[in-house]
Amino acid sequence: MRGPLAAMNDSPTIAVIGGGAIGGYYGARLAQHGHDVHFLLRSDYDAVRRDGWRIRSYAGDFCLAPDASHICNDPRQMPPADLVLVAIKTTANDQYESLIAPLLKHDTAIVSLQNGLGNDERLAELFGAPRVVGGMAFVCSNRLAPGVIHHIAYGRISVGEFGSPPGQRVARIADLFTSSGIPAEVLADLRQGRWKKLVWNVPFNGLGAVLDQSTDRLISDDGGVQIVSALMKEIIVAAESLGLAMPPDMAGRMLRHTRTMGAYRTSMQIDRQGGRPMEIESILGEPLRQARRQGVQTPRLEMLYEMARMLDNHGVEREIRPIQ
Amino acid sequence: MRGPLAAMNDSPTIAVIGGGAIGGYYGARLAQHGHDVHFLLRSDYDAVRRDGWRIRSYAGDFCLAPDASHICNDPRQMPPADLVLVAIKTTANDQYESLIAPLLKHDTAIVSLQNGLGNDERLAELFGAPRVVGGMAFVCSNRLAPGVIHHIAYGRISVGEFGSPPGQRVARIADLFTSSGIPAEVLADLRQGRWKKLVWNVPFNGLGAVLDQSTDRLISDDGGVQIVSALMKEIIVAAESLGLAMPPDMAGRMLRHTRTMGAYRTSMQIDRQGGRPMEIESILGEPLRQARRQGVQTPRLEMLYEMARMLDNHGVEREIRPIQ
Repeated sequence: MRGPLAAMNDSPTIAVIGGGAIGGYYGARLAQHGHDVHFLLRSDYDAVRRDGWRIRSYAGDFCLAPDASHICNDPRQMPPADLVLVAIKTTANDQYESLIAPLLKHDTAIVSLQNGLGNDERLAELFGAPRVVGGMAFVCSNRLAPGVIHHIAYGRISVGEFGSPPGQRVARIADLFTSSGIPAEVLADLRQGRWKKLVWNVPFNGLGAVLDQSTDRLISDDGGVQIVSALMKEIIVAAESLGLAMPPDMAGRMLRHTRTMGAYRTSMQIDRQGGRPMEIESILGEPLRQARRQGVQTPRLEMLYEMARMLDNHGVEREIRPIQ
Repeated sequence: MRGPLAAMNDSPTIAVIGGGAIGGYYGARLAQHGHDVHFLLRSDYDAVRRDGWRIRSYAGDFCLAPDASHICNDPRQMPPADLVLVAIKTTANDQYESLIAPLLKHDTAIVSLQNGLGNDERLAELFGAPRVVGGMAFVCSNRLAPGVIHHIAYGRISVGEFGSPPGQRVARIADLFTSSGIPAEVLADLRQGRWKKLVWNVPFNGLGAVLDQSTDRLISDDGGVQIVSALMKEIIVAAESLGLAMPPDMAGRMLRHTRTMGAYRTSMQIDRQGGRPMEIESILGEPLRQARRQGVQTPRLEMLYEMARMLDNHGVEREIRPIQ
């Protein structure tokens, strides 16, 4: 199964699981470029089936009529896929089996575009490591309403094999994106790539959610920059303890880059504001557990994780209650 | 001036600066027991001058008619005081000079009942160290409305000399409280006392404010207890680096004690909810700076301080804003 995707030379069947900011955007782009895309949606099913996709993109808006892709709400009614793009929230990972198993044939590749750590491993446990390809989306996008995605900036995809060096399969998956107007690159080391992304995600998703502040506010003064940098440093040290090389001045470059993003709200902040579960375990919890197993001290990550958990457990008080 | 307060043998003149949860409660108790109390109020002046004090206390409610104490709004119209009890928020410490200077005679003692660190030092700079006595209030009380104080639990006062061992002066101040139904004790070492109180105040005020959660929620599971304990440990290590002995199992005893308090909201959480400035510098910032000067690492305190500062700088978003 490590070989090329059987049908990907001509017209691979692509299943996109989830129609939010990630699945909606990338799936619509692939369909826009004529690929055979089948979306598996739940809460947005009726709306997208009726109205199709509307993508408001900094690179140019586009719409997809309902019949430009297949909109489904039951995986058992979908065709076997050559490629499954997993774009549900990691808080719903307990549904992997019911959502993905019906879509598999002998050589289906499963690409998790989800946040954080632990997703590839879980998919490998359920469906076998050879099927698993890891993907990362470097994109600022938000779901505004069912089927309405705001693509704010960026959009690059990275793909890498899970547990082995990259071969033809990931090169073809990267080509699939590139040929659909999506910059894509192949990762030599998926774990290294995931940890590099965490260097950004831990401080900005974590602090953004706990403080309910957009990225620009988190780095608006020296104190904020110091805390963000210290969190980045903890992730870098943890990654290095796992044998994963991190580039020099990574924190500095990420901070400069973040300044160009404006008042961006991370997905964890948006989930908090919407009263939805936040991706605490994949973005904060699993990195913390891996650092602990290496004997690496990450006190700031630990505190951020526990603070996020407390908010999630007890809910957010939204009103000024009278003092009684 | 280190000697006994001149007039305290019979009927000392007591000025209480501030009529909130601390000044209102203790000042009203002293007046209830016949002492000559002069309150300096600002926003609550009209209401208290009209209606007096209403104290809802777990130990029994009581009211003070407007003429049972002197209600003032200008320190220049108040008599010279034997004892000044300072009970304003530390965020208003830039007003020390204008509020306190008019009240002083040659042997006036100034007792700050305020939170955190740095207040005694600032008073000593302005008015001379020999005038300064430090006080701490171990009380759960909230100001419900102008002149209406809810005394929820406890109430003990500790007093200690600033920069010298305790003598007759603090013993007499303690007697003044004790004879008014307020348990009071003399501290052998004021700094040690202030740091012991910080062991509780840093985690519960800091986390309570940043997460907007009451004390019971902060320690409702193992993860929360772990973070609270780790913050306590940082304060204990910082205090010990300053040569201040901390009792064994302090964190454990404080946690057990906190469990008896129920859903208590700390003053910083209440200030956050009310949109008022929080006492970030005295409760979090000054301990952090003192730890840094000792070369002690306090990463959790540092992060909590910066997180609180970010909330204070940028305000708290109270509504779920539509994603736009």
